[in-house]
Amino acid sequence: MKEFITISSRDNPVIKQINALKSSADKRKKEGLFVIEGLRQCEDAFDNNVHIVRLIVTKEAYLKHTDIISKFGEKSDICNIVQSSLMDKISDTKSPQGIIMIVKIPEKFDDIKSGEKRYIALENIQDPSNLGAITRTAEALGFGGIILSSGGCDPYNPKALRASMGTLLRMPLFITDDIADFCLSKGLNLVACVVDNTAEDIKNHKFSKTDVVLIGNEANGIKDETLKKCKTKVTIKMTGSAESLNAAAAAAIAMWESIR
Amino acid sequence: MKEFITISSRDNPVIKQINALKSSADKRKKEGLFVIEGLRQCEDAFDNNVHIVRLIVTKEAYLKHTDIISKFGEKSDICNIVQSSLMDKISDTKSPQGIIMIVKIPEKFDDIKSGEKRYIALENIQDPSNLGAITRTAEALGFGGIILSSGGCDPYNPKALRASMGTLLRMPLFITDDIADFCLSKGLNLVACVVDNTAEDIKNHKFSKTDVVLIGNEANGIKDETLKKCKTKVTIKMTGSAESLNAAAAAAIAMWESIR
Repeated sequence: MKEFITISSRDNPVIKQINALKSSADKRKKEGLFVIEGLRQCEDAFDNNVHIVRLIVTKEAYLKHTDIISKFGEKSDICNIVQSSLMDKISDTKSPQGIIMIVKIPEKFDDIKSGEKRYIALENIQDPSNLGAITRTAEALGFGGIILSSGGCDPYNPKALRASMGTLLRMPLFITDDIADFCLSKGLNLVACVVDNTAEDIKNHKFSKTDVVLIGNEANGIKDETLKKCKTKVTIKMTGSAESLNAAAAAAIAMWESIR
Repeated sequence: MKEFITISSRDNPVIKQINALKSSADKRKKEGLFVIEGLRQCEDAFDNNVHIVRLIVTKEAYLKHTDIISKFGEKSDICNIVQSSLMDKISDTKSPQGIIMIVKIPEKFDDIKSGEKRYIALENIQDPSNLGAITRTAEALGFGGIILSSGGCDPYNPKALRASMGTLLRMPLFITDDIADFCLSKGLNLVACVVDNTAEDIKNHKFSKTDVVLIGNEANGIKDETLKKCKTKVTIKMTGSAESLNAAAAAAIAMWESIR
Protein backbone atom coordinates (compact mmCIF):
# COMPACT_ATOMS: atom_id res chain seq x y z
CA MET A 1 0.00 0.00 0.00
CA LYS A 2 1.29 3.39 -1.08
CA GLU A 3 2.21 5.94 1.57
CA PHE A 4 0.20 9.18 1.50
CA ILE A 5 2.47 12.03 2.58
CA THR A 6 0.82 15.01 4.26
CA ILE A 7 1.16 18.49 2.79
CA SER A 8 0.07 21.01 5.37
CA SER A 9 1.52 24.34 4.27
CA ARG A 10 0.00 26.50 1.60
CA ASP A 11 3.58 27.59 0.84
CA ASN A 12 4.49 24.08 -0.24
CA PRO A 13 5.84 24.34 -3.81
CA VAL A 14 3.39 21.62 -4.95
CA ILE A 15 0.46 23.94 -4.22
CA LYS A 16 2.02 26.67 -6.34
CA GLN A 17 2.90 24.19 -9.05
CA ILE A 18 -0.71 22.99 -9.34
CA ASN A 19 -2.12 26.49 -9.62
CA ALA A 20 0.52 27.43 -12.20
CA LEU A 21 -0.20 24.27 -14.24
CA LYS A 22 -3.90 25.04 -14.18
CA SER A 23 -3.63 28.64 -15.27
CA SER A 24 -0.71 28.61 -17.70
CA ALA A 25 -0.44 26.72 -20.99
CA ASP A 26 3.25 27.71 -21.13
CA LYS A 27 3.89 26.12 -17.76
CA ARG A 28 2.12 22.95 -18.92
CA LYS A 29 4.20 22.82 -22.09
CA LYS A 30 7.45 23.50 -20.22
CA GLU A 31 6.86 20.84 -17.58
CA GLY A 32 5.01 18.41 -19.83
CA LEU A 33 2.35 18.11 -17.12
CA PHE A 34 -1.27 19.03 -16.56
CA VAL A 35 -3.82 18.83 -13.77
CA ILE A 36 -7.09 16.96 -13.61
CA GLU A 37 -9.70 17.14 -10.90
CA GLY A 38 -12.63 15.13 -9.63
CA LEU A 39 -13.35 11.45 -9.39
CA ARG A 40 -14.80 11.05 -12.88
CA GLN A 41 -11.89 12.70 -14.67
CA CYS A 42 -9.30 10.93 -12.54
CA GLU A 43 -10.93 7.59 -13.35
CA ASP A 44 -10.78 8.49 -17.05
CA ALA A 45 -7.07 9.26 -16.70
CA PHE A 46 -6.45 6.02 -14.82
CA ASP A 47 -8.41 3.95 -17.34
CA ASN A 48 -6.48 5.53 -20.21
CA ASN A 49 -3.11 4.70 -18.64
CA VAL A 50 -2.09 8.30 -18.29
CA HIS A 51 1.16 8.58 -16.26
CA ILE A 52 0.14 9.91 -12.83
CA VAL A 53 2.96 11.96 -11.36
CA ARG A 54 1.13 12.99 -8.20
CA LEU A 55 -2.18 12.16 -6.55
CA ILE A 56 -3.54 14.60 -3.97
CA VAL A 57 -6.61 13.85 -1.89
CA THR A 58 -8.35 15.08 1.22
CA LYS A 59 -8.87 12.76 4.16
CA GLU A 60 -12.62 12.98 3.58
CA ALA A 61 -12.26 11.89 -0.05
CA TYR A 62 -9.93 9.07 0.97
CA LEU A 63 -12.41 7.73 3.50
CA LYS A 64 -15.31 8.05 1.07
CA HIS A 65 -13.57 6.44 -1.92
CA THR A 66 -10.88 4.33 -0.25
CA ASP A 67 -10.85 1.53 -2.81
CA ILE A 68 -10.65 3.72 -5.89
CA ILE A 69 -8.11 6.10 -4.37
CA SER A 70 -5.92 3.19 -3.25
CA LYS A 71 -6.08 1.85 -6.81
CA PHE A 72 -5.06 5.26 -8.18
CA GLY A 73 -2.31 5.44 -5.57
CA GLU A 74 -0.68 2.23 -6.77
CA LYS A 75 -0.14 3.82 -10.18
CA SER A 76 0.95 7.24 -8.88
CA ASP A 77 4.58 8.26 -8.44
CA ILE A 78 3.76 10.26 -5.30
CA CYS A 79 0.64 10.41 -3.11
CA ASN A 80 -0.30 13.32 -0.87
CA ILE A 81 -3.02 14.06 1.62
CA VAL A 82 -4.16 17.62 2.36
CA GLN A 83 -6.67 19.39 4.57
CA SER A 84 -9.93 20.50 2.91
CA SER A 85 -8.90 24.13 3.40
CA LEU A 86 -5.78 23.50 1.32
CA MET A 87 -7.77 21.58 -1.32
CA ASP A 88 -9.94 24.71 -1.65
CA LYS A 89 -6.78 26.61 -2.67
CA ILE A 90 -6.07 24.30 -5.59
CA SER A 91 -9.56 23.30 -6.66
CA ASP A 92 -11.51 24.84 -9.51
CA THR A 93 -14.89 24.14 -7.97
CA LYS A 94 -16.82 25.58 -5.09
CA SER A 95 -17.44 22.15 -3.55
CA PRO A 96 -14.31 20.13 -4.40
CA GLN A 97 -14.59 16.34 -4.46
CA GLY A 98 -11.16 16.37 -2.83
CA ILE A 99 -9.16 14.56 -5.50
CA ILE A 100 -6.61 16.04 -7.89
CA MET A 101 -3.91 14.50 -10.07
CA ILE A 102 -0.84 15.91 -11.77
CA VAL A 103 -0.36 13.82 -14.92
CA LYS A 104 2.03 13.72 -17.86
CA ILE A 105 1.05 15.12 -21.25
CA PRO A 106 1.14 12.12 -23.62
CA GLU A 107 4.30 12.37 -25.72
CA LYS A 108 3.10 10.72 -28.86
CA PHE A 109 -0.01 9.23 -30.36
CA ASP A 110 -0.40 6.67 -33.10
CA ASP A 111 0.31 8.25 -36.45
CA ILE A 112 -2.45 9.51 -38.76
CA LYS A 113 -4.17 6.63 -40.54
CA SER A 114 -4.94 8.39 -43.78
CA GLY A 115 -7.95 6.89 -45.55
CA GLU A 116 -8.68 4.51 -42.67
CA LYS A 117 -9.89 6.89 -40.00
CA ARG A 118 -11.58 10.28 -40.24
CA TYR A 119 -10.05 13.40 -38.71
CA ILE A 120 -11.15 16.94 -37.97
CA ALA A 121 -8.85 19.96 -38.06
CA LEU A 122 -9.30 23.01 -35.83
CA GLU A 123 -7.46 26.23 -36.57
CA ASN A 124 -7.06 28.52 -33.56
CA ILE A 125 -10.19 27.46 -31.73
CA GLN A 126 -10.01 29.72 -28.66
CA ASP A 127 -12.84 28.59 -26.41
CA PRO A 128 -11.84 25.57 -24.30
CA SER A 129 -15.49 24.47 -24.00
CA ASN A 130 -15.74 24.33 -27.79
CA LEU A 131 -12.55 22.28 -28.04
CA GLY A 132 -13.81 19.86 -25.40
CA ALA A 133 -17.27 19.57 -26.98
CA ILE A 134 -15.85 19.00 -30.48
CA THR A 135 -13.52 16.28 -29.20
CA ARG A 136 -16.44 14.56 -27.50
CA THR A 137 -18.50 14.63 -30.69
CA ALA A 138 -15.53 13.42 -32.76
CA GLU A 139 -15.10 10.41 -30.50
CA ALA A 140 -18.82 9.56 -30.57
CA LEU A 141 -18.79 9.69 -34.36
CA GLY A 142 -15.77 7.37 -34.53
CA PHE A 143 -13.16 9.87 -35.66
CA GLY A 144 -9.48 8.89 -35.40
CA GLY A 145 -8.17 12.11 -33.93
CA ILE A 146 -8.05 15.89 -33.86
CA ILE A 147 -5.55 18.04 -35.75
CA LEU A 148 -4.96 21.27 -33.84
CA SER A 149 -3.07 24.42 -34.68
CA SER A 150 -0.54 25.34 -32.01
CA GLY A 151 -2.03 28.84 -31.78
CA GLY A 152 -5.37 27.61 -30.47
CA CYS A 153 -6.62 26.78 -27.01
CA ASP A 154 -4.45 24.27 -25.17
CA PRO A 155 -6.15 20.85 -24.98
CA TYR A 156 -4.84 20.43 -21.43
CA ASN A 157 -6.69 23.53 -20.24
CA PRO A 158 -8.92 22.45 -17.29
CA LYS A 159 -12.11 23.77 -18.92
CA ALA A 160 -11.38 21.94 -22.17
CA LEU A 161 -10.73 18.70 -20.26
CA ARG A 162 -14.00 19.09 -18.34
CA ALA A 163 -16.09 19.80 -21.43
CA SER A 164 -14.53 16.84 -23.23
CA MET A 165 -15.81 14.39 -20.59
CA GLY A 166 -12.48 12.56 -20.64
CA THR A 167 -12.26 12.27 -24.43
CA LEU A 168 -9.27 14.65 -24.61
CA LEU A 169 -7.42 12.07 -22.52
CA ARG A 170 -7.87 9.35 -25.14
CA MET A 171 -8.40 10.90 -28.56
CA PRO A 172 -5.16 11.15 -30.58
CA LEU A 173 -4.20 14.84 -30.83
CA PHE A 174 -1.89 16.21 -33.52
CA ILE A 175 -0.68 19.69 -32.70
CA THR A 176 1.03 21.51 -35.56
CA ASP A 177 2.20 25.02 -36.48
CA ASP A 178 0.81 24.64 -40.00
CA ILE A 179 -2.36 22.62 -40.41
CA ALA A 180 -2.33 22.79 -44.22
CA ASP A 181 1.24 21.51 -44.61
CA PHE A 182 0.70 18.87 -41.94
CA CYS A 183 -2.39 17.49 -43.70
CA LEU A 184 -0.73 17.51 -47.13
CA SER A 185 2.24 15.62 -45.71
CA LYS A 186 -0.13 12.99 -44.33
CA GLY A 187 -2.08 12.56 -47.57
CA LEU A 188 -5.14 14.38 -46.22
CA ASN A 189 -7.16 17.06 -48.02
CA LEU A 190 -8.61 20.00 -46.15
CA VAL A 191 -12.24 20.92 -46.72
CA ALA A 192 -12.70 24.39 -45.24
CA CYS A 193 -16.00 24.97 -43.45
CA VAL A 194 -16.79 28.66 -43.96
CA VAL A 195 -19.62 31.14 -43.48
CA ASP A 196 -19.89 32.16 -47.14
CA ASN A 197 -22.94 31.61 -49.30
CA THR A 198 -20.82 31.34 -52.44
CA ALA A 199 -19.07 28.22 -51.09
CA GLU A 200 -20.36 24.78 -52.00
CA ASP A 201 -23.37 23.62 -49.93
CA ILE A 202 -21.92 21.05 -47.52
CA LYS A 203 -24.88 18.76 -48.35
CA ASN A 204 -23.65 18.52 -51.94
CA HIS A 205 -20.01 17.83 -51.25
CA LYS A 206 -18.95 14.21 -51.76
CA PHE A 207 -16.55 13.65 -48.90
CA SER A 208 -13.76 11.20 -49.67
CA LYS A 209 -12.09 9.20 -46.93
CA THR A 210 -9.04 11.45 -47.00
CA ASP A 211 -11.07 14.66 -46.67
CA VAL A 212 -10.67 16.51 -43.39
CA VAL A 213 -13.17 19.16 -42.29
CA LEU A 214 -11.40 22.33 -41.16
CA ILE A 215 -13.12 24.62 -38.65
CA GLY A 216 -11.64 28.07 -38.01
CA ASN A 217 -11.42 30.50 -35.15
CA GLU A 218 -14.72 31.51 -33.49
CA ALA A 219 -14.37 35.20 -34.36
CA ASN A 220 -12.14 35.29 -37.43
CA GLY A 221 -12.73 32.01 -39.24
CA ILE A 222 -9.95 30.34 -41.20
CA LYS A 223 -6.77 32.28 -42.08
CA ASP A 224 -6.45 33.33 -45.75
CA GLU A 225 -3.11 31.56 -46.15
CA THR A 226 -4.66 28.31 -44.90
CA LEU A 227 -7.76 28.73 -47.09
CA LYS A 228 -5.52 28.92 -50.17
CA LYS A 229 -4.17 25.47 -49.41
CA CYS A 230 -7.59 23.86 -48.90
CA LYS A 231 -9.03 21.51 -51.51
CA THR A 232 -12.38 23.26 -51.42
CA LYS A 233 -14.70 25.40 -49.31
CA VAL A 234 -18.07 24.24 -48.04
CA THR A 235 -20.75 26.02 -46.05
CA ILE A 236 -23.62 25.06 -43.78
CA LYS A 237 -26.52 27.01 -45.25
CA MET A 238 -28.26 28.95 -42.53
CA THR A 239 -31.79 30.06 -43.10
CA GLY A 240 -32.07 31.73 -39.73
CA SER A 241 -30.65 34.88 -38.19
CA ALA A 242 -27.34 36.31 -39.36
CA GLU A 243 -25.79 35.15 -36.11
CA SER A 244 -23.66 32.19 -37.12
CA LEU A 245 -23.62 28.74 -35.64
CA ASN A 246 -21.43 28.19 -32.62
CA ALA A 247 -18.16 26.44 -33.58
CA ALA A 248 -19.07 23.26 -31.68
CA ALA A 249 -22.46 23.00 -33.42
CA ALA A 250 -20.91 23.75 -36.84
CA ALA A 251 -18.27 21.10 -36.19
CA ALA A 252 -20.91 18.55 -35.16
CA ILE A 253 -22.91 19.11 -38.35
CA ALA A 254 -19.80 19.18 -40.56
CA MET A 255 -18.32 15.99 -39.05
CA TRP A 256 -21.69 14.32 -39.44
CA GLU A 257 -21.90 15.34 -43.10
CA SER A 258 -18.36 14.14 -43.74
CA ILE A 259 -19.24 10.59 -42.70
CA ARG A 260 -22.92 10.64 -43.68
CA MET B 1 -32.76 62.26 -19.25
CA LYS B 2 -33.58 59.52 -16.77
CA GLU B 3 -32.47 59.94 -13.17
CA PHE B 4 -30.05 57.30 -11.86
CA ILE B 5 -30.78 56.74 -8.17
CA THR B 6 -27.86 55.61 -6.01
CA ILE B 7 -28.06 52.33 -4.09
CA SER B 8 -25.32 52.28 -1.50
CA SER B 9 -26.30 49.64 1.03
CA ARG B 10 -25.81 45.95 0.51
CA ASP B 11 -28.93 45.52 2.63
CA ASN B 12 -31.05 47.25 0.01
CA PRO B 13 -33.83 44.82 -0.96
CA VAL B 14 -32.94 45.22 -4.65
CA ILE B 15 -29.57 43.56 -4.04
CA LYS B 16 -31.26 40.58 -2.39
CA GLN B 17 -33.89 40.47 -5.12
CA ILE B 18 -31.26 40.23 -7.85
CA ASN B 19 -29.37 37.41 -6.18
CA ALA B 20 -32.62 35.54 -5.54
CA LEU B 21 -33.73 35.98 -9.16
CA LYS B 22 -30.39 34.68 -10.37
CA SER B 23 -30.31 31.60 -8.20
CA SER B 24 -33.95 30.53 -8.03
CA ALA B 25 -36.19 29.47 -10.91
CA ASP B 26 -39.15 29.55 -8.50
CA LYS B 27 -38.46 33.16 -7.63
CA ARG B 28 -38.25 34.01 -11.34
CA LYS B 29 -41.56 32.31 -12.01
CA LYS B 30 -43.25 33.92 -9.03
CA GLU B 31 -42.12 37.44 -9.88
CA GLY B 32 -42.20 37.00 -13.66
CA LEU B 33 -38.73 38.53 -13.79
CA PHE B 34 -35.17 37.51 -14.60
CA VAL B 35 -31.71 39.07 -14.57
CA ILE B 36 -29.31 39.68 -17.41
CA GLU B 37 -25.78 40.94 -17.17
CA GLY B 38 -23.15 42.51 -19.38
CA LEU B 39 -23.28 44.94 -22.26
CA ARG B 40 -23.82 42.36 -24.99
CA GLN B 41 -26.75 40.62 -23.31
CA CYS B 42 -28.34 43.90 -22.25
CA GLU B 43 -28.11 45.14 -25.85
CA ASP B 44 -29.78 41.93 -26.99
CA ALA B 45 -32.60 42.52 -24.48
CA PHE B 46 -32.97 46.14 -25.55
CA ASP B 47 -33.00 45.25 -29.25
CA ASN B 48 -35.63 42.58 -28.62
CA ASN B 49 -37.92 45.02 -26.81
CA VAL B 50 -37.81 43.13 -23.56
CA HIS B 51 -39.53 45.13 -20.78
CA ILE B 52 -36.69 46.50 -18.59
CA VAL B 53 -37.91 46.85 -15.02
CA ARG B 54 -34.62 48.04 -13.57
CA LEU B 55 -31.22 49.02 -14.94
CA ILE B 56 -28.26 48.96 -12.54
CA VAL B 57 -24.83 50.24 -13.51
CA THR B 58 -21.58 51.29 -11.91
CA LYS B 59 -20.28 54.83 -12.33
CA GLU B 60 -17.33 53.41 -14.29
CA ALA B 61 -19.62 51.59 -16.71
CA TYR B 62 -21.77 54.71 -17.10
CA LEU B 63 -18.76 56.84 -17.99
CA LYS B 64 -17.41 54.22 -20.39
CA HIS B 65 -20.69 53.53 -22.20
CA THR B 66 -22.66 56.74 -21.57
CA ASP B 67 -24.56 56.73 -24.86
CA ILE B 68 -25.69 53.13 -24.72
CA ILE B 69 -26.57 53.23 -21.04
CA SER B 70 -28.55 56.45 -21.50
CA LYS B 71 -30.43 54.74 -24.33
CA PHE B 72 -31.15 51.73 -22.07
CA GLY B 73 -32.18 54.12 -19.29
CA GLU B 74 -34.88 55.75 -21.42
CA LYS B 75 -36.59 52.37 -21.74
CA SER B 76 -36.10 51.29 -18.11
CA ASP B 77 -38.74 51.75 -15.41
CA ILE B 78 -36.09 52.51 -12.78
CA CYS B 79 -32.34 53.27 -13.09
CA ASN B 80 -29.80 52.77 -10.33
CA ILE B 81 -26.14 53.45 -9.87
CA VAL B 82 -23.98 51.38 -7.48
CA GLN B 83 -20.37 51.23 -6.31
CA SER B 84 -18.16 48.58 -7.92
CA SER B 85 -17.95 46.79 -4.59
CA LEU B 86 -21.73 46.41 -4.57
CA MET B 87 -21.78 45.33 -8.24
CA ASP B 88 -19.37 42.55 -7.22
CA LYS B 89 -22.07 41.27 -4.85
CA ILE B 90 -24.63 40.86 -7.62
CA SER B 91 -22.42 39.94 -10.56
CA ASP B 92 -21.78 36.43 -11.84
CA THR B 93 -18.35 37.22 -13.20
CA LYS B 94 -14.99 37.92 -11.62
CA SER B 95 -14.54 41.14 -13.61
CA PRO B 96 -18.06 42.55 -14.02
CA GLN B 97 -18.74 44.96 -16.86
CA GLY B 98 -20.85 46.87 -14.37
CA ILE B 99 -24.24 46.61 -16.04
CA ILE B 100 -27.19 44.50 -14.97
CA MET B 101 -30.88 44.55 -15.86
CA ILE B 102 -33.97 43.09 -14.21
CA VAL B 103 -36.36 42.31 -17.06
CA LYS B 104 -39.83 40.81 -17.48
CA ILE B 105 -40.29 37.26 -18.65
CA PRO B 106 -42.19 37.51 -21.95
CA GLU B 107 -45.80 36.55 -21.33
CA LYS B 108 -46.67 35.11 -24.67
CA PHE B 109 -45.08 34.31 -27.99
CA ASP B 110 -46.64 33.97 -31.42
CA ASP B 111 -48.47 30.69 -31.66
CA ILE B 112 -46.96 27.58 -33.25
CA LYS B 113 -47.03 27.81 -37.04
CA SER B 114 -47.52 24.14 -37.78
CA GLY B 115 -46.16 23.18 -41.19
CA GLU B 116 -44.69 26.65 -41.78
CA LYS B 117 -41.85 26.72 -39.31
CA ARG B 118 -39.76 23.92 -37.79
CA TYR B 119 -39.62 23.31 -34.06
CA ILE B 120 -37.52 21.27 -31.67
CA ALA B 121 -38.83 19.73 -28.45
CA LEU B 122 -36.68 19.24 -25.35
CA GLU B 123 -37.85 17.00 -22.53
CA ASN B 124 -36.24 17.74 -19.18
CA ILE B 125 -32.95 19.06 -20.50
CA GLN B 126 -31.10 19.80 -17.26
CA ASP B 127 -27.88 21.53 -18.27
CA PRO B 128 -28.43 25.25 -18.89
CA SER B 129 -25.44 25.36 -21.27
CA ASN B 130 -27.08 22.68 -23.41
CA LEU B 131 -30.37 24.57 -23.48
CA GLY B 132 -28.57 27.78 -24.48
CA ALA B 133 -26.48 26.05 -27.15
CA ILE B 134 -29.49 24.23 -28.64
CA THR B 135 -31.49 27.47 -28.83
CA ARG B 136 -28.58 29.16 -30.61
CA THR B 137 -28.34 26.35 -33.16
CA ALA B 138 -32.12 26.34 -33.65
CA GLU B 139 -32.09 30.02 -34.46
CA ALA B 140 -29.17 29.70 -36.88
CA LEU B 141 -30.98 26.89 -38.71
CA GLY B 142 -34.13 28.99 -39.00
CA PHE B 143 -36.33 27.13 -36.53
CA GLY B 144 -39.54 28.81 -35.35
CA GLY B 145 -39.24 28.02 -31.67
CA ILE B 146 -38.43 25.63 -28.85
CA ILE B 147 -40.95 23.41 -27.08
CA LEU B 148 -39.79 22.81 -23.51
CA SER B 149 -41.09 20.54 -20.77
CA SER B 150 -41.75 22.41 -17.55
CA GLY B 151 -39.55 19.93 -15.64
CA GLY B 152 -36.38 20.94 -17.44
CA CYS B 153 -33.86 23.69 -16.88
CA ASP B 154 -35.40 27.15 -16.71
CA PRO B 155 -34.66 29.14 -19.89
CA TYR B 156 -34.16 32.26 -17.78
CA ASN B 157 -31.30 30.67 -15.84
CA PRO B 158 -28.26 33.00 -16.20
CA LYS B 159 -26.03 30.23 -17.61
CA ALA B 160 -28.62 29.27 -20.22
CA LEU B 161 -29.00 32.90 -21.26
CA ARG B 162 -25.23 33.31 -21.57
CA ALA B 163 -24.77 30.14 -23.62
CA SER B 164 -27.63 31.13 -25.92
CA MET B 165 -25.86 34.37 -26.95
CA GLY B 166 -29.10 36.28 -26.69
CA THR B 167 -31.16 33.79 -28.71
CA LEU B 168 -33.24 32.79 -25.65
CA LEU B 169 -34.41 36.42 -25.57
CA ARG B 170 -35.89 36.22 -29.05
CA MET B 171 -36.74 32.61 -29.92
CA PRO B 172 -40.39 31.74 -29.21
CA LEU B 173 -40.48 29.36 -26.23
CA PHE B 174 -43.39 27.05 -25.51
CA ILE B 175 -43.26 25.62 -22.00
CA THR B 176 -45.66 22.76 -21.33
CA ASP B 177 -46.29 20.06 -18.75
CA ASP B 178 -46.86 17.47 -21.46
CA ILE B 179 -44.83 17.79 -24.63
CA ALA B 180 -46.65 14.95 -26.42
CA ASP B 181 -50.15 16.32 -25.83
CA PHE B 182 -49.03 19.85 -26.62
CA CYS B 183 -47.58 18.79 -29.98
CA LEU B 184 -50.60 16.70 -30.90
CA SER B 185 -52.88 19.64 -30.12
CA LYS B 186 -50.81 21.82 -32.46
CA GLY B 187 -50.79 19.33 -35.32
CA LEU B 188 -47.14 18.41 -34.80
CA ASN B 189 -45.68 14.89 -34.77
CA LEU B 190 -42.89 13.97 -32.39
CA VAL B 191 -39.88 12.11 -33.76
CA ALA B 192 -37.99 10.81 -30.74
CA CYS B 193 -34.20 10.95 -31.00
CA VAL B 194 -32.93 7.98 -28.99
CA VAL B 195 -29.74 6.03 -28.32
CA ASP B 196 -31.01 2.69 -29.58
CA ASN B 197 -29.59 0.82 -32.52
CA THR B 198 -32.93 -0.79 -33.29
CA ALA B 199 -34.48 2.61 -34.00
CA GLU B 200 -34.61 3.94 -37.57
CA ASP B 201 -31.35 5.51 -38.76
CA ILE B 202 -32.01 9.26 -38.73
CA LYS B 203 -30.42 9.50 -42.19
CA ASN B 204 -33.23 7.35 -43.59
CA HIS B 205 -36.15 9.14 -41.99
CA LYS B 206 -38.12 11.38 -44.33
CA PHE B 207 -38.93 14.34 -42.14
CA SER B 208 -42.21 16.05 -42.95
CA LYS B 209 -42.78 19.72 -42.21
CA THR B 210 -44.88 18.88 -39.18
CA ASP B 211 -42.27 16.54 -37.67
CA VAL B 212 -40.61 17.78 -34.50
CA VAL B 213 -37.38 16.25 -33.23
CA LEU B 214 -37.61 15.37 -29.54
CA ILE B 215 -34.42 15.30 -27.45
CA GLY B 216 -34.57 13.81 -23.95
CA ASN B 217 -32.85 14.32 -20.63
CA GLU B 218 -29.03 14.10 -20.66
CA ALA B 219 -28.89 11.13 -18.29
CA ASN B 220 -32.22 9.37 -18.71
CA GLY B 221 -33.34 10.12 -22.26
CA ILE B 222 -37.02 10.40 -23.12
CA LYS B 223 -39.69 9.22 -20.65
CA ASP B 224 -41.47 5.99 -21.60
CA GLU B 225 -44.90 7.59 -21.48
CA THR B 226 -43.75 10.29 -23.92
CA LEU B 227 -42.07 7.74 -26.20
CA LYS B 228 -45.38 5.90 -26.55
CA LYS B 229 -46.95 9.03 -28.01
CA CYS B 230 -44.18 9.69 -30.54
CA LYS B 231 -44.76 9.04 -34.24
CA THR B 232 -41.47 7.17 -34.54
CA LYS B 233 -38.01 6.73 -33.03
CA VAL B 234 -34.81 7.66 -34.85
CA THR B 235 -31.17 7.32 -33.84
CA ILE B 236 -27.87 8.94 -34.74
CA LYS B 237 -25.68 5.92 -35.47
CA MET B 238 -22.46 6.19 -33.54
CA THR B 239 -19.47 4.23 -34.70
CA GLY B 240 -17.26 5.54 -31.92
CA SER B 241 -17.02 4.90 -28.21
CA ALA B 242 -20.05 3.85 -26.18
CA GLU B 243 -20.06 7.29 -24.63
CA SER B 244 -23.02 9.00 -26.29
CA LEU B 245 -23.14 12.35 -27.98
CA ASN B 246 -23.68 15.36 -25.80
CA ALA B 247 -27.32 16.58 -25.99
CA ALA B 248 -26.36 19.82 -27.73
CA ALA B 249 -24.36 17.97 -30.42
CA ALA B 250 -27.13 15.39 -30.88
CA ALA B 251 -29.68 18.20 -31.18
CA ALA B 252 -27.52 20.01 -33.76
CA ILE B 253 -27.23 16.89 -35.91
CA ALA B 254 -30.90 15.97 -35.49
CA MET B 255 -32.17 19.47 -36.31
CA TRP B 256 -29.87 19.54 -39.32
CA GLU B 257 -31.21 16.19 -40.54
CA SER B 258 -34.80 17.31 -40.04
CA ILE B 259 -34.36 20.21 -42.49
CA ARG B 260 -31.68 18.67 -44.72
